[in-house]
Formats: sequence, structure tokens, C-alpha cells
Amino acid sequence: MTNTLFLPELREMLAESDAAGLAEFCTTLHPARTAEFMEGLTPEEAWAVLQHADDATRAEIYHYFELAKQIAMIETLDRTAMAGLIGHLAPDERVDILKEVNPTVVEELLPLVPALERRDIQRLTAYPEGTAGAVMTTSFARLSEKSSARQAIDDLARQAANLETIYYLYVVDEEDHLRGVVSARQLVSAMAKPDTPVGELMERSVVSVQVADDQEDVAEVVAKYDLLAVPVVDQERRLVGIVTHDDVLDVMREEAIEDVHMLAGIAPLEHSYLDTSLVTLAWKRGMWLTVLFLAGLLTALALQTYEEARMTWPWLAIFIPLIVSTGGNSGSQSATLIITALTAGHVSSRDWLRVAVREILSGVMLGGLLALIGYGVAMLILNQEVSHGTQVPNPTTAAIVVPVTLVLVVICGTLVGAMLPLLFHRVGLDPALMSTPFVSGIIDIVGIVLYMNVALRLLVVIAGG
Amino acid sequence: MTNTLFLPELREMLAESDAAGLAEFCTTLHPARTAEFMEGLTPEEAWAVLQHADDATRAEIYHYFELAKQIAMIETLDRTAMAGLIGHLAPDERVDILKEVNPTVVEELLPLVPALERRDIQRLTAYPEGTAGAVMTTSFARLSEKSSARQAIDDLARQAANLETIYYLYVVDEEDHLRGVVSARQLVSAMAKPDTPVGELMERSVVSVQVADDQEDVAEVVAKYDLLAVPVVDQERRLVGIVTHDDVLDVMREEAIEDVHMLAGIAPLEHSYLDTSLVTLAWKRGMWLTVLFLAGLLTALALQTYEEARMTWPWLAIFIPLIVSTGGNSGSQSATLIITALTAGHVSSRDWLRVAVREILSGVMLGGLLALIGYGVAMLILNQEVSHGTQVPNPTTAAIVVPVTLVLVVICGTLVGAMLPLLFHRVGLDPALMSTPFVSGIIDIVGIVLYMNVALRLLVVIAGG
Repeated sequence: MTNTLFLPELREMLAESDAAGLAEFCTTLHPARTAEFMEGLTPEEAWAVLQHADDATRAEIYHYFELAKQIAMIETLDRTAMAGLIGHLAPDERVDILKEVNPTVVEELLPLVPALERRDIQRLTAYPEGTAGAVMTTSFARLSEKSSARQAIDDLARQAANLETIYYLYVVDEEDHLRGVVSARQLVSAMAKPDTPVGELMERSVVSVQVADDQEDVAEVVAKYDLLAVPVVDQERRLVGIVTHDDVLDVMREEAIEDVHMLAGIAPLEHSYLDTSLVTLAWKRGMWLTVLFLAGLLTALALQTYEEARMTWPWLAIFIPLIVSTGGNSGSQSATLIITALTAGHVSSRDWLRVAVREILSGVMLGGLLALIGYGVAMLILNQEVSHGTQVPNPTTAAIVVPVTLVLVVICGTLVGAMLPLLFHRVGLDPALMSTPFVSGIIDIVGIVLYMNVALRLLVVIAGG
Repeated sequence: MTNTLFLPELREMLAESDAAGLAEFCTTLHPARTAEFMEGLTPEEAWAVLQHADDATRAEIYHYFELAKQIAMIETLDRTAMAGLIGHLAPDERVDILKEVNPTVVEELLPLVPALERRDIQRLTAYPEGTAGAVMTTSFARLSEKSSARQAIDDLARQAANLETIYYLYVVDEEDHLRGVVSARQLVSAMAKPDTPVGELMERSVVSVQVADDQEDVAEVVAKYDLLAVPVVDQERRLVGIVTHDDVLDVMREEAIEDVHMLAGIAPLEHSYLDTSLVTLAWKRGMWLTVLFLAGLLTALALQTYEEARMTWPWLAIFIPLIVSTGGNSGSQSATLIITALTAGHVSSRDWLRVAVREILSGVMLGGLLALIGYGVAMLILNQEVSHGTQVPNPTTAAIVVPVTLVLVVICGTLVGAMLPLLFHRVGLDPALMSTPFVSGIIDIVGIVLYMNVALRLLVVIAGG
């Protein structure tokens, strides 16, 4: 959503080369707000405005632009200028952006980026997407165990300008092995005794993650221990980077969307909806839709088998969609409840018996309620069928088939919907694979078999009586 | 999941009153790990272990216990001891826990809590659930504008021990009005010129939230501006608290679960699955299930209307669940894609035309694929029906009804599934209200009407030809 409030003023200032005004615009607001007001500018105009900010502020404002604009600027503007900008971006951010830029442009740009930053980009690019290595930043504060608190503060004052975060200060030995961590708070508190060595202040048992760990696990660790950042170490426990709280928020948002997609039977998308090509989207959806369709074919085969029931009581067809969708809905609800409870750690597969009892009781309550409504409506419809001349012997009694089936199908729905994710969890599969349409598909078949059998048993008795 | 690794050792140490061992256990590990190892202990045993930690560490370990254990300890152990513990907990945390504790116990406890903390508890409890006021903490660092950087650091060294966070230092005037913010990093960098007044270092345009703001909006602000904490102000812009990054993570996880529940047609739960009573759960699910059931009744009424088609071609019933569920699945997928894209800000209601075109094309591709499979299976089934002696004139041609309906219903599904959330968003409603079972319910009815009409048009022509 483009904020066009300032666009005329900005364009006027550019036309008049109002350096003072533009410099003020670049520095007065939070860079995120400044970026918002610049959304409507072309890449050239945006770059002209950013000329009036210092290197750090320019990089900060650019950081808050939308990805599409960031890419357009890098691809279309002067290569040397862009290489300079890239040098000032956070290490993890520039790698994320460069991954999306046209590779030919990247090839032209990289030789222009200062050697130190270039090597850093090449190192970070090597980590596979979705790992700690791919989301970490390489700019963080390092301290030596032997420094005093006073020296450490002085050290930091020098390093601070270039660092993304100094909330945790990691203590390393000569070979960069992670030895401990000091928080900024501890260091500041220690200023009462400025000669205390860092080695005495530091916490030795540091929570860390491996560079190849899944980003979702990294986010879990940060959330569990209430951390601001978590150090990333390689196999020799050398400190190679940190993952900060804002990256964790991004990861959690990404993963939450992925989970919701999986629950609806859509394979995870790598880009946003509008940035995903139609063919990719069709493929991501089509895979699951086809699997569900094949499961759906089983309902047709099941119905075919019950030819006798269908032919004897053709009115049964009227209630098929109602019964099937009610079973599916109750099953989806249970599956969703259990999958979210499993993800949040509120339920484990050992709780299966308790869950089963709860779901059966829920099924009885919910099914009972719906059966009452269903019986009334079924009676009305069947009596109308009779008045239309269709043969429904004893419609008021025959209508009992509908509520009886409803109670059974809702109980099956809640039970199967809750047990399948627990089973998947138990055998080590992602319970979200047991997507809600998949649960519905299974309940569809169960529902039809129940419906036909209830009809055969009850209606034969009624006809006989 | 209880970690029982250390339980025997812990119980042995307790039996032997091994003070040194227990003190070491309490301090060596990260408090979250210590808490994990203590999960299996009874409240009395846990409290006995915690006697060997100092007040701050004890509160920290307690913070990481599961809510059920936290409540059990407060409700069953010595009131004076618990009042002391409560005094050492973070302001926002103790309020969250006390809300769950038996009110009689709270009444007995509160008079034992130190006056300062007690007033703080009463103030925080007054904010409604789900607002910034209810998630914020009242312990944060305040600085005066007139202090020098050096004075500020000394000030902090005194305050730091009692504070949850010092990453941002809020600058206030005499009446506590929020004037600006200084980061710990800026303050440390300024140690090069220790006489710089804080007023010169501070950022004046501070991103803040109102005490009555929805917690979801607070989380959005923190995520958007990449903040570690956001100040909470009252209507006169007086600083009353801060919401920190770890609370934001919790809010985001809560909201993500709520969104998933809403998508499955479950009203938001206040507690976790196993902590919610069966009656509450049945109510939260029953509301929506009943609404969906009433919508489902429309499918029965629709089918009743097409009596002629049902009676002339009774085999049509075989494919009803397949057609209905395929439409529902494609609709749920589209609804989920659009709802998540709306939530993430990747799509807005102004994009409706582009989304509509994309979804129709997706519908054509997906529907076409499923129609091919569907035609083959429908042909096989109808030919079998004929061989069983059922009357299906010209089964190979009649089977065309199935693929034609499938293409139409999938296109309707993708289009309706995508447009309804956009419409809801446009008129200011939460698009997640357009839950996937609701979309399925609508497509169910559309699917039946399409199926019956396609059958009537095509089969009459075939019979006539």
C-alpha cells in the first residue's frame, strides 16, 4: 500500500535540488516511516533522495523498502553506487536481496564490493535456504576473556557503530571458539568494578545452534529461552554468526503461513502469492488436489457398491452432501485443534487416550445437537416428497436414518480427526501433513458407508414392521 | 514432555540435604534447562530445591515452569513464601499467573506482597485481556534528558539488576511524558565523549503504542520497525510500560493459533486444548458447526428441487460427494492462499481483478486435469452399472456430465474462495471469518446446482440424439 502523502513535496524538492529539505526528510523520521513515504518514487528518484543521507542512514532506509523496489534499484542503477550501498547493508540482508537479483547483475556487482564484504557474501550464500546459516548475520560483538569490563566497554564503543546488535557480547578465544556470553546489562552493571575481567562476568553455559540447524528449530530455541539473539557455531564450536530476534520474528511468520498452507493442502510456497508463477502455484496445489481427488473417487466406488439401497430409497441421495460435509467439518475442527496443540507443545502423543475420550464426548454432544435439527428437516423434506407423489413409505419413521447417521458420522469425524495427527506425530511425521481436506476426505468415505448401512438396517426393519 | 534424567539425583540430594549440590544445580545451567529437569518434581520438592537459589535465580527458574505447575505451587505452598516469590517475578508475568490462580488464594496472598509490587499488580490487572496494557511490563529503564552519558551509565548500573531489559532507555520529563529513546548501543558509543547530554543523543521520534491498543497491532508495530521493545503510553503520552520482544513472540504464536482455529471454524480458545473444558470446547466448535450445518441443509433443499433429474438418472447420486468435495477443496485452497496473503500484506483488496484472473486460470488448469481423470473413472463406473442391469443409456456419452461439472465447479471454487476473503477485507471484516469450511459450504451448494443443471442440459440432448 503506497503512501502518497509526501510524494508531491519530495518531487518538488528534487526538482529544486533542495538539499537541506531532503537531508531533513532523510533523518527526521524513523527510517521505516521514511521508506514508507518513498514507496511511490521510481528507483532513480529514490536514489536521488537517498543521496542526501549518510551511508548508514541510506542503507537503513533502503532496508525498509519493499523487496521488489530493492531489486529494481540494484538492477537498474549505477553498478558502483549499488556496490557501495551493498557494502553498508546488514550481512544477512544483502545476501537475501542478492539471491533475488538477476545473476548477471550480481556477477557485475560483486567485483565492485569491498573485498571483506564480498568474501562475507560468498560465505553466507553457501548455506542452504532455511538453515541457521542462511538467516544469521556475521556482524556481532566479540570480546576476549581477558579484557576487563572497562576495556570491553571501550572496545565496544569502537565496534558499536558497525554492529547490528550489542545486546549480547560473545566471548571467544584466539581460534574463535565460543567460550561464553556477557549481556550489555551485565557489562554496564559491572562498571561499579571496572577492573573485573570479562571471563568472570560471562555466563559459560551458552545456548547455541548449529549452522546447519533448521530455521524453525532456531526460532523455537530463541522463543523457549527468551533470547534476543542466539549464537551460531560450526562443527568445531567456532562462532560463525548470530541469529537476531527480528530474523526470528520473520522466520516465525514464514513458518506460520507455511503451516496454514499445509493444513489446507497446499505445498509451501517460496515466494508471496502474487510473486509465484501460475504454473508453480497450480503445481503446488495440484499435487494435493489430485491426491484428494483420488481419495474422493473412493466415495463414488463406495456409493456404487450400495446399488440396492440407492435404488430402493432414491431419496437417500438428498442428504448425502449434508452428511458428508458435517462429518468433514467436525473432523477438520478436531484435526486443527490437535495439530495446533501438538505444534504448541500442549499435547503429546502419549495423551491419546485422554484426547480420544474428550473427542468422543464432544462428538456425542455436537452430533446430538445437529441430529435434532437434522431430524426435523429430514421429516419435512420426506413428507414433501410423499406429497409430490414419490414413494416414501412411512416418512416420519424413515427420516430417523438422517439423525442416527449424523451422530455416528460426527463421532467418527472428531475421533478420526484427532487421532490421525497424533498417529502421524507418534511415527515422527509432521502432523500438519494430515491436512484438514485429507481428514475430510477420509470422513467422506466413512460417512457414506455409515449412511448406507444405517439405511439398510433401519429401513428394512421399518418396511418389515 | 517431562525430562526425568535428573530426577533420581535431585531426590537423592534432597533426602541427603546436599545444599552444595542443589545450589550448584540451581545456578550452573540456563534457568530454562534447570526448570526442564525439575518438571517431574512435586510442588513441595520443587520448592525445596529452589531454597538453594538466591531470590532472583529462584524467580527465573520458576518463570520457566509450566503454567499448571506455577499455579499448583502458588495454591498449595506457604502463602508468605509465595508472596515473596511473586514480588520477584516480572510485573507482566506475575499478573498473567495470578489471573489463573484460585481467586480466594489471590485474596489471601496479595496483602503479603510488598506494597509497591501489590499496587503494580492491581494496576496491570485492570487492563483488559488482549491489549498492550495487559502484556506490557512496568520494569524498564528511564533516563532524564539532562543527564550526561556518563551519569546515565552510572544510573543504569544501579537500576540494571532489577530491570527486564535495558536495550532501549526511555527518556522522560518530570511528569513521565515520553520525550525520546536512547539505545544501549548509542550510550556505549557515546562513552568516547562522556559529557554529551542524553537529550542530544536521544531519538525524538519514538514509535510507541497506546495502552488500549490490540496486542496483535502491537506485535505488528514491533515486527515492522524491527524493535526489541515498544513503549506503551497513556492518553496523555505518559510512559506507563513497555512490551518486549519475548512477549511479542508469545503474542504472535497465540494469534497464529487463533487464526488457524478461525480458518477451521473454531472460535478462539482462551486456554490450551487440554485446559479447555469440554463444554466450552463444544460451544466454541458448536456455534460454527451449527451455522455450517444450516448452510448444509440448503444442499438438501437444492437436491430436493431437482427431483426430475434424480429420478430419471439415479446414477447421478454416485458422483455427488466427489464433485462437492473437489469444489470445496479447491475453494479452501484459494481462500487460504488469499487470507494468508492478506494477513502478510502481500495482497490488498485493490488487487481483486488480478487475483480473479489468476484464480480463473488456476481453476481451468486444475479443473481440466481432474476432469480428465474424472471422465475415465465415470466411464468405467457407468459401464459397470449397465452390466449390472441398471438403465444408463449410452454410458460413454453420459459420463461427460462428470468432467464438465468438475471443470465448472473447480473454477467456481477457486474464484469464490479467492473473492470472498477479499470482499470481507474490503468491507472491514476479518477475512479469516470467511473460514475454509464456510467457503466449502458455499461451493457445496454451487456444485450441486451446477451438477444438476449440466445433467439436465446434456443428458436431455444425449437422450434426444
